[in-house]
Amino acid sequence: MNEQAIKDILADVVRKVLAEECGGRPGSAGMDAGPIPVEISARHVHLSLQDAIALFGADLHPERPLSQPGQFLSAERVRLIGPKGVMDNVAVLGPTRTASQVEISKTDARALGINPPVRQSGETAQTPGIILASSTGILGLSQGVIVAARHIHMHTSDARRFGLKDKDMVDVRLETERPMILKDVMVRVGDNFALSLHIDADEGNSAGWKPGTEGTIIGRSRGGT
Amino acid sequence: MNEQAIKDILADVVRKVLAEECGGRPGSAGMDAGPIPVEISARHVHLSLQDAIALFGADLHPERPLSQPGQFLSAERVRLIGPKGVMDNVAVLGPTRTASQVEISKTDARALGINPPVRQSGETAQTPGIILASSTGILGLSQGVIVAARHIHMHTSDARRFGLKDKDMVDVRLETERPMILKDVMVRVGDNFALSLHIDADEGNSAGWKPGTEGTIIGRSRGGT
Repeated sequence: MNEQAIKDILADVVRKVLAEECGGRPGSAGMDAGPIPVEISARHVHLSLQDAIALFGADLHPERPLSQPGQFLSAERVRLIGPKGVMDNVAVLGPTRTASQVEISKTDARALGINPPVRQSGETAQTPGIILASSTGILGLSQGVIVAARHIHMHTSDARRFGLKDKDMVDVRLETERPMILKDVMVRVGDNFALSLHIDADEGNSAGWKPGTEGTIIGRSRGGT
Repeated sequence: MNEQAIKDILADVVRKVLAEECGGRPGSAGMDAGPIPVEISARHVHLSLQDAIALFGADLHPERPLSQPGQFLSAERVRLIGPKGVMDNVAVLGPTRTASQVEISKTDARALGINPPVRQSGETAQTPGIILASSTGILGLSQGVIVAARHIHMHTSDARRFGLKDKDMVDVRLETERPMILKDVMVRVGDNFALSLHIDADEGNSAGWKPGTEGTIIGRSRGGT
């Protein structure tokens, strides 16, 4: 066996073990397709049209566009009323959806006195409810409160570039003041998505997030480890 | 060169690259010395004897021991008064120290309206101040507010077992509901320390910490990456 053959075998083995042992590295895992902007999702509410009308007497009014195409911050605000606490001036995002959903951090949940699970958006079965109030209406949601699981929005073309598909799970490195690797980050792929990692306020604070923070996908998540 | 020699070289290289590229793995890095209990440090205050007397008229009164030998939760509580908000009923830990220090999360800091840096305990140069109040006294600290940097307390015998020394930096994996790897965790070694990873409330919430959560050291931190 000549030296080059040895080197080739060696390189193959190193890449294989690397991918197995630490979720791969940029380059080795073929995911070195550039950085991902990181955004904080502060507490917010999505409303069904029916619930928007119950609270505000009309559909939501767009105030400014969000980074995800078609999504907007509405001019409307709500009060969240839990058994232990109240939060005022909470953003309502539009357009309206088929079901109302309240996304808060674990810190918020403790202050409100509820214990919602960590879920992907839309997965609201068996979640706690909450009371929503506007200046003119009040509404009890029997369910719909979640702590939003971190996720990466990717346009279909981004997903191709990263070699990933909808619902893939990846590990993401944040090189911040408090650097960390977020494991089990779900990838959501769609033609209406813009590339962005969404984390909640707790995750942002614990990572030392600042405007301009970027993440790097370091490999696919390995289940159960 | 025979096949066994090639395999030996190969194994050495893989181990070396692993250690360099992903902070090593248990076993390969020699740090597979068992799990580390993880504790949340909620917001708290350390006082100098002088400041304790100014606020309470006397030294602190132990209420119950903490996990670190010799440390205790005192019977005293203080109010934190910042430019934007107030926090009541904040724990005071004893015994008294040479300088007063206030440890809060970034979430707390935002509510209080101050912007303390992430620091190891005791490193209070050029940190913001705050007002402390008891039911009988009020006191302005000109500095001393920090967001405590995560750290692992290790007894000298633990450090030997893990092959680590005081001020080493390691990466720690948390296998929680929201699994993550905390990078740049400082190891503090002392004969009065009990093995425990201390994280703050933001880090606990973002990891999905629960009582009984343990961490695993996966290797030394690589500076600057």
